[in-house]
Amino acid sequence: MAIKIALLGLGTVGSGVLKIIKNNQKKIKQTSGEEIVIKKALVRNPAKHQNLANEVELTTSFDEILHDSEIKIVVELMGGLHPAKEYITAALKAGKNVVTANKDLMATFGSELISLAANQQCDLMYDASVAGGIPILRTLSTSYASDIISEIQGIINGTTNYILSQMSEKGLSYEAALKMAQQLGFAEADPTNDVTGKDAAYKIVILSKFAFGTKIGINDFTIEGINNLQDFDIRQASRMGYVIKLIGIAKNIAGKLFVEVAPCLLPENAIMAHIKNELNALQIKSQSLGTAIFTGPGAGSSATANSVMSDVIAETSNFVKQINGRPFSNFSRIMKLTSSEDVKYPYYLSFEAEETLFALSKLLSKLEIPIREIKRIDKKTVVVTEDISRRQLQDLAIQDSYLRANYKILQ
Amino acid sequence: MAIKIALLGLGTVGSGVLKIIKNNQKKIKQTSGEEIVIKKALVRNPAKHQNLANEVELTTSFDEILHDSEIKIVVELMGGLHPAKEYITAALKAGKNVVTANKDLMATFGSELISLAANQQCDLMYDASVAGGIPILRTLSTSYASDIISEIQGIINGTTNYILSQMSEKGLSYEAALKMAQQLGFAEADPTNDVTGKDAAYKIVILSKFAFGTKIGINDFTIEGINNLQDFDIRQASRMGYVIKLIGIAKNIAGKLFVEVAPCLLPENAIMAHIKNELNALQIKSQSLGTAIFTGPGAGSSATANSVMSDVIAETSNFVKQINGRPFSNFSRIMKLTSSEDVKYPYYLSFEAEETLFALSKLLSKLEIPIREIKRIDKKTVVVTEDISRRQLQDLAIQDSYLRANYKILQ
Repeated sequence: MAIKIALLGLGTVGSGVLKIIKNNQKKIKQTSGEEIVIKKALVRNPAKHQNLANEVELTTSFDEILHDSEIKIVVELMGGLHPAKEYITAALKAGKNVVTANKDLMATFGSELISLAANQQCDLMYDASVAGGIPILRTLSTSYASDIISEIQGIINGTTNYILSQMSEKGLSYEAALKMAQQLGFAEADPTNDVTGKDAAYKIVILSKFAFGTKIGINDFTIEGINNLQDFDIRQASRMGYVIKLIGIAKNIAGKLFVEVAPCLLPENAIMAHIKNELNALQIKSQSLGTAIFTGPGAGSSATANSVMSDVIAETSNFVKQINGRPFSNFSRIMKLTSSEDVKYPYYLSFEAEETLFALSKLLSKLEIPIREIKRIDKKTVVVTEDISRRQLQDLAIQDSYLRANYKILQ
Repeated sequence: MAIKIALLGLGTVGSGVLKIIKNNQKKIKQTSGEEIVIKKALVRNPAKHQNLANEVELTTSFDEILHDSEIKIVVELMGGLHPAKEYITAALKAGKNVVTANKDLMATFGSELISLAANQQCDLMYDASVAGGIPILRTLSTSYASDIISEIQGIINGTTNYILSQMSEKGLSYEAALKMAQQLGFAEADPTNDVTGKDAAYKIVILSKFAFGTKIGINDFTIEGINNLQDFDIRQASRMGYVIKLIGIAKNIAGKLFVEVAPCLLPENAIMAHIKNELNALQIKSQSLGTAIFTGPGAGSSATANSVMSDVIAETSNFVKQINGRPFSNFSRIMKLTSSEDVKYPYYLSFEAEETLFALSKLLSKLEIPIREIKRIDKKTVVVTEDISRRQLQDLAIQDSYLRANYKILQ
């Protein structure tokens, strides 16, 4: 008995899934316990996919998939919130298991869909929704099942990492690096979600649920992208022995959860500083394991398709044993979010140099901001602080209009 | 209903497991579906463990554990081949599930124990047997379930990586670095298994089974440790932009399997070159994911205990659903091993300089070994070749008694 599945969407990831199932059938049968067959694929325009028509039945009707009792797993690869949410809801209500790669959806409507799946005794897996080629969600739910995570730091957006790598290594401007990323297919025509940090924010929402058991929303934390980053600061950071990366962070600070997406400075000898171009990486600090780092491609057709297939195989294996319905992550805990007094980091601060060193020093001293280094370069002033609270930083930003940029310095 | 387990051995890993279960009970119950309780621990000398006597019942009799029908999972942490093999065999025959961290055992008697477990419908998991703190075996069996792996490169021995890092960064001799590793607890009093590469060889045997589905034995491939490595070669490699690491490699070369443990040169800008001191790392190349790297602590009480606990939780979760008995890895395929003509790498060769450059060049030319670089330094000669076969290398070693060391150069 082969397990029949349906794909919603047949774009780059969908055709990647098709290719994996076609080429690696023998291994898949061994590892999942069953042959897996794609019975139907939902597409908007069948004419566009005629080259695949002899491999899979194309349909424009979701109902046809919904009412096909042979189809046990529905794989949602359309993206976007609607109608993805409605389709997944209907599939779960019909008793079908679901795989999705949709991070926006899971970050926005995750809890609702997860509890529906549990009620329906169906699987809902979404390993591909975060860092496509790094099996991070499954790892968090299995290999960290008895470990207590204290911090997760991620380079979880390939587009921005590519742009920052090119700026840092080739001295390109932000605009030139973005253009190059677009030409090479590492950035979309409209890169807004990537460069503003929103894409990374969706991912850190999902990661926080797996790592800390705690549900947060995209509006619960600060999101800063790389679109205002100046090449001056990248050069200056480099001279001081740092690399700037866009980091999504979720950290347990004295029992409260700190979450943020922002450009940060990493010491140039850190492993995370060597994660370049379109690569993604996650650094996890935990009680038992100390520091572990997982790195690989963050996106791309075949990497994302592979994560989707891991989920399809896990659900197939559950189906064979008739044990669908266990949540992808069972960990649940309520944590308060940190307030701005709780969060302390050393900071890199960059000021317009119209301000005199005397005035600046006086203000920093008044706000009790301890200084590690202060430099005047190219008509600008750069300050590296010792640990200061975000509250102090906010006060500084209010009282000093010359402050142009501030970035956490991570260890 | 709590799940009762027994530990065989209460050394550093065993007491690590005790500590995790005690401290993280709440999370464990959520993620495994049940409370987990250590009912008994087998120890040689109960007097030595009196400090733990109120946390766990100590026994010197394995039979007491074997005949306790409440005990559903036996965790073997004694190490060594015997009586570990006999105890695990008896436990499986009694219908108990087993977790082990014993790489020597799994590399030597793995197939026998795995098929016994399958016949008995029991789980046998051993994620901790390779790279304690990196969940590599579980990742290979789940996240690579539909992917085709072409190569696995591992820094899988923390002792040797520590020694090499100290030699390379602080210019220490092998002896001084080993002594330092022993003082810091990164090397045992008798470091033979580590420095000769045997420990890494056991691990690559297990990794090959998971990555390629192919069973090999420890005598099927070349094992070279770091005990003959000279600081001259480390310095020289460094001057040429390389770092020397002890690498376990398993690679599909045109459908045949190449396996080896040996010191190798890595380009200094490679991520793997930045894995320092006691850290371990695994780099996996595959069809869908391209290159992924997993890094973390390779050993240590709490890291190994955490991997053991991941297995205990997975088996508990299976027990709750009554689905024990599925092999840890289902992937199985027969591959021939490569012959010395099949394997081609660029090599770093180091010669005693009694030999004239003329004689050496003549010989290299006769053996059709193409040269990328040749240098005479400190009365020695160093040659970097283009791709040559192991057959050519063997011929060279036979015909040139001045050849002192040869190391593959990896990309």
